[in-house]
Amino acid sequence: MVERLPKISWSGTSAPTHREPDFEHAYAVILAGGSGTRFWPLSRRRRPKQLLDLLGRGPLLAQTVRRIRSVIPAERTYVFTNELLRADVSRCLPGIPRDQIVAEPAARNTAPSVGLAAHEILRRDPDALMVVLPSDHIIRKPAEFRQVLGAACRWAATEGRSVTLGLKPTRPDTGYGYIRKGARVARIAGQDIYGAEKFTEKPPLPTARRYLTSGRYLWNGGMFIWRASTLLENLACCHPEMARGLAQISSAGGLRAGATLRRVFPKLEKISIDYALMEKISNIYVVAADIGWSDVGSWAVVYELQRKDAAANVRPPRSICLDSQGNMIVSPRKFVVTVGVHDLVIVETDDALLVAARGRSQEVGKAVQELERRGYAPLL
Amino acid sequence: MVERLPKISWSGTSAPTHREPDFEHAYAVILAGGSGTRFWPLSRRRRPKQLLDLLGRGPLLAQTVRRIRSVIPAERTYVFTNELLRADVSRCLPGIPRDQIVAEPAARNTAPSVGLAAHEILRRDPDALMVVLPSDHIIRKPAEFRQVLGAACRWAATEGRSVTLGLKPTRPDTGYGYIRKGARVARIAGQDIYGAEKFTEKPPLPTARRYLTSGRYLWNGGMFIWRASTLLENLACCHPEMARGLAQISSAGGLRAGATLRRVFPKLEKISIDYALMEKISNIYVVAADIGWSDVGSWAVVYELQRKDAAANVRPPRSICLDSQGNMIVSPRKFVVTVGVHDLVIVETDDALLVAARGRSQEVGKAVQELERRGYAPLL
Repeated sequence: MVERLPKISWSGTSAPTHREPDFEHAYAVILAGGSGTRFWPLSRRRRPKQLLDLLGRGPLLAQTVRRIRSVIPAERTYVFTNELLRADVSRCLPGIPRDQIVAEPAARNTAPSVGLAAHEILRRDPDALMVVLPSDHIIRKPAEFRQVLGAACRWAATEGRSVTLGLKPTRPDTGYGYIRKGARVARIAGQDIYGAEKFTEKPPLPTARRYLTSGRYLWNGGMFIWRASTLLENLACCHPEMARGLAQISSAGGLRAGATLRRVFPKLEKISIDYALMEKISNIYVVAADIGWSDVGSWAVVYELQRKDAAANVRPPRSICLDSQGNMIVSPRKFVVTVGVHDLVIVETDDALLVAARGRSQEVGKAVQELERRGYAPLL
Repeated sequence: MVERLPKISWSGTSAPTHREPDFEHAYAVILAGGSGTRFWPLSRRRRPKQLLDLLGRGPLLAQTVRRIRSVIPAERTYVFTNELLRADVSRCLPGIPRDQIVAEPAARNTAPSVGLAAHEILRRDPDALMVVLPSDHIIRKPAEFRQVLGAACRWAATEGRSVTLGLKPTRPDTGYGYIRKGARVARIAGQDIYGAEKFTEKPPLPTARRYLTSGRYLWNGGMFIWRASTLLENLACCHPEMARGLAQISSAGGLRAGATLRRVFPKLEKISIDYALMEKISNIYVVAADIGWSDVGSWAVVYELQRKDAAANVRPPRSICLDSQGNMIVSPRKFVVTVGVHDLVIVETDDALLVAARGRSQEVGKAVQELERRGYAPLL
């Protein structure tokens, strides 16, 4: 796909830029082991969303690293993925030192990996701050994002504080986690920092509607900032068994302790960092981040983010759309003709073709489950 | 596509079969030079509709020859096509003698070819009857068709008579020619033969509606039966210049007179046999033929003729249709997934993809015109 993003209206021209000292001890921990199905047939097990160039600006993972490069350099960036994806992740991120691209020995969700990263980073810097970031979201205001991160880092530099970024909800989405803001505790570099009173995962629709209208809730975008030592203290407190396992790996050499890692890591509790800590510990803060965030959750979202032709179609140059409106067409090789169709998602790859109502593109995952059930392994 | 035609309810189990003597002097002239665009992207200039296997029973042209084989053998069958298609037509019809597959030196519509065929056939049999047939229609009651043909041949054996097959209209189609029935003049082998009072090409919708309700009109399916000598007499009368040109070719050797053929044929009047004769001459008769005829005019018609799944989709085995109804999917190689879409035509080939509202599939030709305008030659 070619570059089609709508022009961003930069809101922060007069806002202060981030201060370099805020990031002096900051290490990025980028989580790139995820596998989704909602971008089938483009996404596959070996080519999940973070490796896709959905918006013509490079793979989402590469964008994630590029976005923070000016504040957290490659030497202080760690990427966690799995064995299946490691080679492609490395190819995608030529600047990152090879030994900082870590293939998890087993899929244990995010908490064990974040714990492992904390130990690793603490070896390098006892004052290290961890900036944990998903690898498959987009942020359309990268300068504002770096400002927010700088403020979060400055606040999290004090032992014991955990900071998360909250996104202002725009719809009563039942697929996200919500954070209830408490009192404002600080204002740093133009960013308001609030106490985080409560985390709620995927609420039912009436609840989500209430959250939206209350104005007191923010979406949890899975971006966390804390001292590595604070994270390990919290883990020791809430998940002592996991903490012991991680300590065992660390004393054997951490990421370089291949045998111990392969033996101990797969036994660690399989749990996300949200469930493991954020919903349990106190002393959590949230920065309300106006950064043009989207988790790009379906083909319909990709459609919204792209530039359209006069009939609101997103389509390749080699196509003819007769009396067709609101369609999103991905076909890098074939010529596409549409006649009298509207609001479809049409995606064509070497071995598969998807034609879906755009409003139902999040259901594509169901079809992938069905493919799995029928044993069509090459298509997964 | 696999065999999916609905079972035909054979109406004629007790009807008399055709009599061999009716076909003793019958020669088939099959017109296979046509090029359409409504089956794009499957149909191309080099692979028009008559060469497509649209219904899983072989190419329409091969079906046409097979359908009459038991009454008009290969030795008495001529096929007219063009240089571009000749090799593929020959491959499609291995039983037909090579010198009876004729590539027209220029596209002059059907009248000059039919005239050329008449001369050729007259050399072999002065009593020859010509059975002129299109090559891109389907007939779902082949036994009834042969009975109708037998009756038509018997009636046309008398010098001066021309016979055409009329199909009972099922809708006020404005794309067909209509024939007004006159008085019944005979009943042969269970078939009623009427005088043909008037031919009307592609009437406007109100007229077509009137024709349909009157019960006096039949569709012109382009199937004609007459003595070769009668055809030539009519041509000499209505189109003396064309008749002279044809006579010139014939006296030089007919189909074997390469140089004369290439010189004279391209100058013959470009006109269809319907316009050239049927609308002008008298002594024309029509047999009302109940033979399960269809000209398979669009993807929508192919859809109607195929067997559907429980959700009324026509689709390949390698497909998953979630909450999708009434779609027609042609994808010989790719796995297809649909989600929440209905009444679409989806056709995928090596280099192109069509997604059209089924009810508008006859507009595909407009897109092909647009491709032509833009100069996408490989896609035509």
